[in-house]
Amino acid sequence: MTHPLDLTTDVVTLTRALVDLPSESGREAELADAVEAALRALPHLTVRRVGNSVVARTGLGRAERALIAGHLDTVPAAGNLPSRLADGRVHGLGACDMKGGVAVALRLAARIPAPVRDVTYVFYECEEVEGDRNGLAHIGAECPTLLADAALAILMEPSDAGVEAGCQGILTADIVVKGARAHTARAWQGVNAAHRAARVLQRLDDHTPDRVVIDGLEYREGLSAVAVRAGVAGNVVPDECVVTVNFRFAPSRSEEEAEAYVRGLFPEYEVRVTEVVAGASPHLDRIGGFIRALGAEPRAKLGWTDVARFAALGVPALNYGPGDPSLAHTAGEYVPVEHLERCETRLRTWLS
Amino acid sequence: MTHPLDLTTDVVTLTRALVDLPSESGREAELADAVEAALRALPHLTVRRVGNSVVARTGLGRAERALIAGHLDTVPAAGNLPSRLADGRVHGLGACDMKGGVAVALRLAARIPAPVRDVTYVFYECEEVEGDRNGLAHIGAECPTLLADAALAILMEPSDAGVEAGCQGILTADIVVKGARAHTARAWQGVNAAHRAARVLQRLDDHTPDRVVIDGLEYREGLSAVAVRAGVAGNVVPDECVVTVNFRFAPSRSEEEAEAYVRGLFPEYEVRVTEVVAGASPHLDRIGGFIRALGAEPRAKLGWTDVARFAALGVPALNYGPGDPSLAHTAGEYVPVEHLERCETRLRTWLS
Repeated sequence: MTHPLDLTTDVVTLTRALVDLPSESGREAELADAVEAALRALPHLTVRRVGNSVVARTGLGRAERALIAGHLDTVPAAGNLPSRLADGRVHGLGACDMKGGVAVALRLAARIPAPVRDVTYVFYECEEVEGDRNGLAHIGAECPTLLADAALAILMEPSDAGVEAGCQGILTADIVVKGARAHTARAWQGVNAAHRAARVLQRLDDHTPDRVVIDGLEYREGLSAVAVRAGVAGNVVPDECVVTVNFRFAPSRSEEEAEAYVRGLFPEYEVRVTEVVAGASPHLDRIGGFIRALGAEPRAKLGWTDVARFAALGVPALNYGPGDPSLAHTAGEYVPVEHLERCETRLRTWLS
Repeated sequence: MTHPLDLTTDVVTLTRALVDLPSESGREAELADAVEAALRALPHLTVRRVGNSVVARTGLGRAERALIAGHLDTVPAAGNLPSRLADGRVHGLGACDMKGGVAVALRLAARIPAPVRDVTYVFYECEEVEGDRNGLAHIGAECPTLLADAALAILMEPSDAGVEAGCQGILTADIVVKGARAHTARAWQGVNAAHRAARVLQRLDDHTPDRVVIDGLEYREGLSAVAVRAGVAGNVVPDECVVTVNFRFAPSRSEEEAEAYVRGLFPEYEVRVTEVVAGASPHLDRIGGFIRALGAEPRAKLGWTDVARFAALGVPALNYGPGDPSLAHTAGEYVPVEHLERCETRLRTWLS
């Protein structure tokens, strides 16, 4: 059954309707059906379905094309359904991350049949889970031309209705400290890998991350142990201690440079890189017009978002959406009505 | 069904029969039945069953009583059943730890109806698992008089057919290092507990354990991290890191002194003691006669054994049994026939 989705209603009612149509990652089919049906009803859009993601494009032959994207999925519910309107806020699962932003984008798609720039709307699945399930990645791999002809991508991630430019890269690596097992009753016959890991942890504690300024925005880096694991049995000197580090690096570093940097900090240990994805530069030179039109003061995005996927396709991208990013994934998440209305008004003005 | 256990056969055949009657900890009933039946058939012994442990006592009114004990259980099988006789060794699960010793004790019980000193034989369950399941502890708690009237206890733990006197104590504690969570994209907003744990691990690495000499025997201590655990999620600065330490301490320290020692090393951290059991002093003054009679050179026992339970009952105890202790719990464990025969002969001489 496809729920009807009324794109002519106001943005608050539409946000609540989206929240009330649950779409935990991997279970977006019903919501994707509803979005697809609503968009196919609009004659000015060409609609394409890829998995449970939906792409809708105007084809007016404008000189420039913009892309507006939002993910359909949410983290699992936490007793925060159905939606609730109170204190000027829409409360409920995904209200902030990011059905409020999706509602804004759907309203723009429906209400502006002839924008001054062509627009590609993207509503995609599985953003909250492993990267290889990400709907935007699937579209980029299967149909890159659907995305790559945009001059600018606006990702409607919650950013307090302000512009957060670029994003950090992420590297995760295991630093492996080796020892030799022994019975603890004869500990001196072994080499305790956990004791030896003190040097790795102290080096992390002593490390001062760089503060990289790009286009006037500061991308402060961070290098953190996120896990330490050692232990064979209660009476055994452990022969291995693994320290997992998470490196958030400025977009000025490539993936290769980030990896070399971490390896260079721990030259005497085995370093197993398990994940590395580059960030995205802010490209204020290419998104400055948008920022000025919105009257926003850009900030650096700390954290990795799908803007990096657009950057990899050569499309400068930014985060711009309603909601406080620190509320994402919390049981009490909400989106202020004022944010919804401000984002919709400013984007409509920019497109009209 | 009770397997017949023939105590008149030679010690090698009896060891193999015991190995071939599996008795993983918690599953000793069948073996305990067999041992009980065989001992009840001997008119010079008074037999008592406690759970799956069996106590058999002579009652000759001798001036002195000795106790000979062995546990019936083994660790889980590791492809090392059934028993095998090769190269002058009995191979198989429990051959070393400690069905060889049990076979020696059963032979003594059967073949010496009128020993020069009264004897209490104890065959008990669940030595290889948590202390609160230990059969010797159960007997000590329920019927302490069955054990406490012995002037000397001989625990047939594998000790290369030599005397290992006393044993170390064990203390296990969690050292808890606290921090404050943050997203790794803003790591500077938190306090990384794993980084701070470097100081705990470095202190362990720098620590020089004491070498305590008692009655000429050296009880070398050891303080080892046996586990390190930290980690909330791949993008979270961890707010807690727990270092589990295992302290093997000389029998000169009481449980309270051992605890105060470890707490004194880490005064600025929360220290949660999860286990502390005292060791046992060698008491060479009280076991010297036995050692001289056996012509053995005593060594310090490194590691904790049930001799400490006898010590707590006021009974001086020692480890004396066939087999190399370093083979215990290995898939390739075996016991040399020469050890079996030497232990049986020497104990028989001492009792006859």
